[in-house]
Amino acid sequence: MSFNIEIIGFLAATLTTASFVPQVFRIWKTKEVKDISFMMYLSMFLGVSLWFYYGLLINSVSMMIANIISALLVLSILYFKKNYSEK
Amino acid sequence: MSFNIEIIGFLAATLTTASFVPQVFRIWKTKEVKDISFMMYLSMFLGVSLWFYYGLLINSVSMMIANIISALLVLSILYFKKNYSEK
Repeated sequence: MSFNIEIIGFLAATLTTASFVPQVFRIWKTKEVKDISFMMYLSMFLGVSLWFYYGLLINSVSMMIANIISALLVLSILYFKKNYSEK
Repeated sequence: MSFNIEIIGFLAATLTTASFVPQVFRIWKTKEVKDISFMMYLSMFLGVSLWFYYGLLINSVSMMIANIISALLVLSILYFKKNYSEK
């Protein structure tokens, strides 16, 4: 696989993984989660966990790193959603 | 690449792509986007667009399909965020 293609993959992984950061910060700051879908982040958590496992099976370290970081960020959004929701 | 590994990849892609659906429906129903981070979905849109391009470069049809669906779902959340935000 060529070097240029792997740069595209690396950029793509960085953007999708980093995308969760501004959402985590927004909730951290506002403590508001009303409009956030719990089901979205549950499905996303299961999905990125499976991508991590896929990376493990095909020995892709970059895939494992990107998806474990995504999983932790998504898990923190799930935690916020559970704890900041009005009862 | 073995058949079993590709089942894991297919399941992972289905879960991460489908995860956006409940968020789209939630906003569609409530028309509330206050807690949604625009930056998250902008970064996610650029990321899945690059994953689509990566899929094109390595001739992975499943990668192209999963990421074009994700891109459209993410784009609709960006549209909602722009249009339902209080001015």
